[in-house]
Amino acid sequence: MSNEKITKQETQVSKDGIDANVLFSEFKEHSVADFFKKNRQMLGLYGKQRTLTTIIHELVTNSLDACEEAGILPEIEVKISEIGEEYYEISVMDNGPGIPENKIGSALGKLLAGTKFHRLVQTRGQQGIGVSGIILFSQITTGKPTKVISGTSKERAVSLEITIDSKTNSPKMTNKVYLEKKFRGTGIKAKFKEIQYKKGQGSVDEYLRRTAIANPHATIVFQDPFQEVTKYERIVKTLPKIPKQVKPHPRGVTVDELLSLARYTSARKISSYLMLTFDRFGQTAVDSIAKMIHFDINKDPRKITWEEAEEIVSAIKKTKFIAPNTNNLVPIGENFIEKSLQTIVEPEFCFVYTRKPSVYKGGYAFQVEVAVAFGGNAGRLVSVSSPKAKNRKDSLDNEEDTKEVRVSEIIRYANKSPLLFDAGGCAITKTVQSIDWKRYGIHNFESAPVTVFVNLISVHIPYTSAGKSAIADEEEILAETKLALMDVSRRLGRYIIDKKKEAEKLEKRKVFAKYAPEIVQALSRITGADATKLQKNLDKMVLEKLKMEDLEDQKQKAKDDKIEEEIEEEEEIEE
Amino acid sequence: MSNEKITKQETQVSKDGIDANVLFSEFKEHSVADFFKKNRQMLGLYGKQRTLTTIIHELVTNSLDACEEAGILPEIEVKISEIGEEYYEISVMDNGPGIPENKIGSALGKLLAGTKFHRLVQTRGQQGIGVSGIILFSQITTGKPTKVISGTSKERAVSLEITIDSKTNSPKMTNKVYLEKKFRGTGIKAKFKEIQYKKGQGSVDEYLRRTAIANPHATIVFQDPFQEVTKYERIVKTLPKIPKQVKPHPRGVTVDELLSLARYTSARKISSYLMLTFDRFGQTAVDSIAKMIHFDINKDPRKITWEEAEEIVSAIKKTKFIAPNTNNLVPIGENFIEKSLQTIVEPEFCFVYTRKPSVYKGGYAFQVEVAVAFGGNAGRLVSVSSPKAKNRKDSLDNEEDTKEVRVSEIIRYANKSPLLFDAGGCAITKTVQSIDWKRYGIHNFESAPVTVFVNLISVHIPYTSAGKSAIADEEEILAETKLALMDVSRRLGRYIIDKKKEAEKLEKRKVFAKYAPEIVQALSRITGADATKLQKNLDKMVLEKLKMEDLEDQKQKAKDDKIEEEIEEEEEIEE
Repeated sequence: MSNEKITKQETQVSKDGIDANVLFSEFKEHSVADFFKKNRQMLGLYGKQRTLTTIIHELVTNSLDACEEAGILPEIEVKISEIGEEYYEISVMDNGPGIPENKIGSALGKLLAGTKFHRLVQTRGQQGIGVSGIILFSQITTGKPTKVISGTSKERAVSLEITIDSKTNSPKMTNKVYLEKKFRGTGIKAKFKEIQYKKGQGSVDEYLRRTAIANPHATIVFQDPFQEVTKYERIVKTLPKIPKQVKPHPRGVTVDELLSLARYTSARKISSYLMLTFDRFGQTAVDSIAKMIHFDINKDPRKITWEEAEEIVSAIKKTKFIAPNTNNLVPIGENFIEKSLQTIVEPEFCFVYTRKPSVYKGGYAFQVEVAVAFGGNAGRLVSVSSPKAKNRKDSLDNEEDTKEVRVSEIIRYANKSPLLFDAGGCAITKTVQSIDWKRYGIHNFESAPVTVFVNLISVHIPYTSAGKSAIADEEEILAETKLALMDVSRRLGRYIIDKKKEAEKLEKRKVFAKYAPEIVQALSRITGADATKLQKNLDKMVLEKLKMEDLEDQKQKAKDDKIEEEIEEEEEIEE
Repeated sequence: MSNEKITKQETQVSKDGIDANVLFSEFKEHSVADFFKKNRQMLGLYGKQRTLTTIIHELVTNSLDACEEAGILPEIEVKISEIGEEYYEISVMDNGPGIPENKIGSALGKLLAGTKFHRLVQTRGQQGIGVSGIILFSQITTGKPTKVISGTSKERAVSLEITIDSKTNSPKMTNKVYLEKKFRGTGIKAKFKEIQYKKGQGSVDEYLRRTAIANPHATIVFQDPFQEVTKYERIVKTLPKIPKQVKPHPRGVTVDELLSLARYTSARKISSYLMLTFDRFGQTAVDSIAKMIHFDINKDPRKITWEEAEEIVSAIKKTKFIAPNTNNLVPIGENFIEKSLQTIVEPEFCFVYTRKPSVYKGGYAFQVEVAVAFGGNAGRLVSVSSPKAKNRKDSLDNEEDTKEVRVSEIIRYANKSPLLFDAGGCAITKTVQSIDWKRYGIHNFESAPVTVFVNLISVHIPYTSAGKSAIADEEEILAETKLALMDVSRRLGRYIIDKKKEAEKLEKRKVFAKYAPEIVQALSRITGADATKLQKNLDKMVLEKLKMEDLEDQKQKAKDDKIEEEIEEEEEIEE
């Protein structure tokens, strides 16, 4: 900022206004690092608690990604120490593959650089901004470099300090030391100001709890500033499949992408370009498309015009393709989600449902995993103030009468990473709110003991901001999430109704058991019949009546199932 | 994307996992244009209607900024024409200063370039991303270049076509033609797919209506795809002050900024650096700071260490500074806002209040303007479905019984630009919701006929996303907005209560007028007194009683005023 010479503004305004050349005399270009330094809110780095949780989020997701890409069961240690007022040191250490020495600088100290942005692969990070943004934030709040330790299985482990020159978006490394001890993994340690550790909603504790739920294969140890240690031991020992790079699916591909990808292909013909570049693109599809276009499909793909590409895309839309390859999306899995929820949330019961993979605009494959946990410890405990205290919202008096109640919670994930902020702007929240929960036996969703779990996995999550806290409402994602939620809600609704019926039946039997002897005695007195015989006959009669009711219930259930199946089939067809 | 050769993933996973060097073989750097091309959701370019409104927003704010910076009363023409299904041509033409020919490419065809990002000046745009992002979006949805016409008062007007090479973030210009006719201003015309024109909330119509409310000095003409023209004539003919570049205010400056700014200063001493660089920094402040730091204030500012800068910042915190220079923030003004609301919203009455300028973290000056409009056409008309129809939310049957009701609306602005989306994540919405409206006579805010207007003006708006639709909740901004809202709410509350009292009084008089003759007749019959005399006496008695009540009311009002003044004083002190 050249604040010292403000010459422009002293210019006289003529009747035509200030001349454009004067106005444009201050024209400049800026680096992406300077951009995010000035707009740190766009990285989710605002609010003392939110900033802290975002820092942990970026470091932990980076570690989990590294471990999974390398096929290593993750063990992650997170430590927060208080140094002063709103001043902390944070370290995150993993047992991942490490970073090759010659890549440390650009991997951590340069924004928009990395292995993830240009490939379609299901990872938590996808921008090449996260950790470098965090290092930048450490540096602008404390002036201190970030310490990095990295050990790969091949090279000597190295420790160094890193800062970022925001003007040029480039790393500066100092104090490089080679370590003697054998070590594999990455450790990052940095100091931060303007953050604050607190428990509760939006906290690091809540973030890591949710991370553990969606990553049952990971062990996470967390030491908070009070030296209290929370350990989430891995619940399952199976390593998830290594996420593979995905070719874009032809359904949903745009004209611009078709042309951009063609620019870099090694294929000599459009036909081979299509088959090499896109998922599920075989000879049959090529033949079908060749018939629909008005130029030679064996043309050089680098010479396709926009109009020709439009023809291809519109031909693709009329062609049938197999759904995206499921091998490339790695869901948590229904069994594992259930195990996690049972262990960590401890509900009365839960239902999990995984939709089949689908595709949204741009040809990006995605898949939705959904669960509802109900009763037990499901939902979230909140302190509510008494109505009297609530009326004084604007007052400065904070002494309030409070009580604890259980309310519903929506836990959102994108590629197994918890999304803790900006709930209102997120496609997942909007979909959960669009469900008519009353139909499923939940009369007031807000105050029900329910945890709704939604995990969106995709080779590219359409975030609304670089801070990666909310998912944009892309039509296909909304639709798939809704179908998944309707499925688990139906099952939950059935459970709640069955439970209610069972309770009514039990009550009926109780009532019978209570009054039967009296009726028998009375009948015996009136008719002179034998009381024991009467009792036996009455028991038999009632038992038959109850059996018939059960039978009726079963019939109704079978009918419901059939209707449900039909609904499901209809939905599949609609897709 | 090199999708054709996926070698890495075929690598055998050893017991140590995949080697880091293999994992990092795909490491790459990316341009900011490619980043936003892939993450267009971060620019607010998602959802067919939202995308269209965002396009209009970027183009219109650019025009308004240009006119105001040049001291020209804005006249803006917006035109949307439908070309095909979800396919439109959009043009925005202004009477601004134009763009110098040699700057057109980088101003419109390069992201993160411009005159706004590095200067602290109150403009609507502040990133150097908006219009170039829009041009990129036009190009990736239609493959067509954007047409630009620019005329400055000095050079010949020029027309050309522009596209952006996203790999290198650089403009490509073609078809340049010099125009014969005289012309001053900028016109941008581009085609877009994947958008849709609709009326209602979030629409272009609503966006321009709100723009007109906050920009009473601008004339805006809008032609929709049905060739219907809406014209907002300027309500006031006064040009707002030209927004000036602001020096950062010392209150709120961070250590990092102090150091960054010192790197480029021409001053030779810290003392002169501080006085030259910061707003309201005089010799007295320098003397006071000199006494608090442990090094020479005449040291070379380029040689300050982090620790020394920390000392200066902590000394600054203990020093008194005058509030930021009001000349550099340009509010709309209370009279103008009222005029706008009366003309466009047509409420029964409204209250406007402008807070004094303040500063938030980073030394950024800001100011809040707030208004409530009540009754009349205030609020927003919505169609609501009947309760019966509402129960079938999940059903596909869209035939619903609806009726129109008036509900409250919050109209948010940042530097006079309407914010239409992401309301839930915005500091303004959060503050409005934190007000206890019941205290002010509004028992159900949601369904009250109220329009709440909030305009945040600042030399740097802390947006939560590059899409610029929501303001991050910075403490100081929340506090100032709350104080402003409490002021107008109090005045509204008083109005509502007065109105109620007035109505009660009127009712009383009516009742008296109705029954007095009967009472007089009855009394006359019982006592035998003269009816006319009785009537006269009774009238006198009642009149005195009413007068006393009025007096009582006035006393109470004076008391209230005093309490209110005290509250206001307290608030000022708290600040």
